[in-house]
Amino acid sequence: MASEKRASQAKEKTNGKYEAILRAAVKVFARSGFFNAKVADVAREAGVADGTVYLYFKNKDDILVSIFDHVMEEALALGRERLAEVADPVEKLKRIVHAHLDRIGRDRDLAIVFQVELRSSTKFMEQFSATRVTEYLDMIRHVIEEGKKRGVFRRELNTTIAAKVLFGALDEMATNWVLSRKRYSLVTTAGPVIDLLLNGIASA
Amino acid sequence: MASEKRASQAKEKTNGKYEAILRAAVKVFARSGFFNAKVADVAREAGVADGTVYLYFKNKDDILVSIFDHVMEEALALGRERLAEVADPVEKLKRIVHAHLDRIGRDRDLAIVFQVELRSSTKFMEQFSATRVTEYLDMIRHVIEEGKKRGVFRRELNTTIAAKVLFGALDEMATNWVLSRKRYSLVTTAGPVIDLLLNGIASA
Repeated sequence: MASEKRASQAKEKTNGKYEAILRAAVKVFARSGFFNAKVADVAREAGVADGTVYLYFKNKDDILVSIFDHVMEEALALGRERLAEVADPVEKLKRIVHAHLDRIGRDRDLAIVFQVELRSSTKFMEQFSATRVTEYLDMIRHVIEEGKKRGVFRRELNTTIAAKVLFGALDEMATNWVLSRKRYSLVTTAGPVIDLLLNGIASA
Repeated sequence: MASEKRASQAKEKTNGKYEAILRAAVKVFARSGFFNAKVADVAREAGVADGTVYLYFKNKDDILVSIFDHVMEEALALGRERLAEVADPVEKLKRIVHAHLDRIGRDRDLAIVFQVELRSSTKFMEQFSATRVTEYLDMIRHVIEEGKKRGVFRRELNTTIAAKVLFGALDEMATNWVLSRKRYSLVTTAGPVIDLLLNGIASA
């Protein structure tokens, strides 16, 4: 029974219903807030029956976790692909910053879910930070290590702290963009952010 | 009636009940999570009757907002005082970083409330970012502007982005510390964080 269900899920995932429900959930969670949203709202937005949602997801929490996993998997896969195209660690760092701000900045609903709704409980935060966020930080750390070895990044840097600072900078740029009353293109901040992280605040 | 109540609140604030309730709320929200916590739990932890809590706070949301306001007011006042003691913008920036990581790192319960529970809804986030966070960012911006004028910080920097990057770095250091399974002193990361922000990742 369980394996039949899983097989049917796998088939359905490919026909797009799984992704359609995730997309609908992003809209609903962004609009109503995760705590106020109901699984029935997600079903209605996706144009499926409530029961269909439960074929793919255990509950509302599971939908939120799946949004996170799905988007992070895509971002990590794309990130690794784009980093493999270039050798220069400076260029790699630029690509990470650009891709991060571009992805979040292209989809305001997703940005609200990522920057606000996903931070809504210690339980979620611990779960997320233990998994994909760690992978993401590892990707950044790897690039910094590479740059240190090649001598383009300062060898005395603490790699872990540098990765957290970089991630924190991107995360704050995104949160600030979501919460700001001003409307601007998030990705246009990539240049100044990269310059600051590479060259620092102090005069030479 | 309203003014009597306010006068009594002012009196009570000075006799410490207000602060005792806030301290109790920090403990309860950190332990149970804001959404699960009840006003009655806060009252019990503070050793007061439920009704006493309602003399000072409209509801549970109001307690959370008051924790934020109270801590930020203290931090801003102390920050301004300590910044006024020195003239060098580099030293000022160091003091901001050190004070931020020291304050959060000294009180794990408060850190959980600040880094996780306070981010729990778009409504809260918008409210906070519109007020004290803006004041805090302004304080950082002011120091960066001063450093640019004195020529110790790069004149081509975008001040607003630099302030956001700095705040984001501190915020991520704090969140990472709260969520990490490793136990370490947060304030010991101040040195490497300052070095990175001042001097950047790239080799000269």
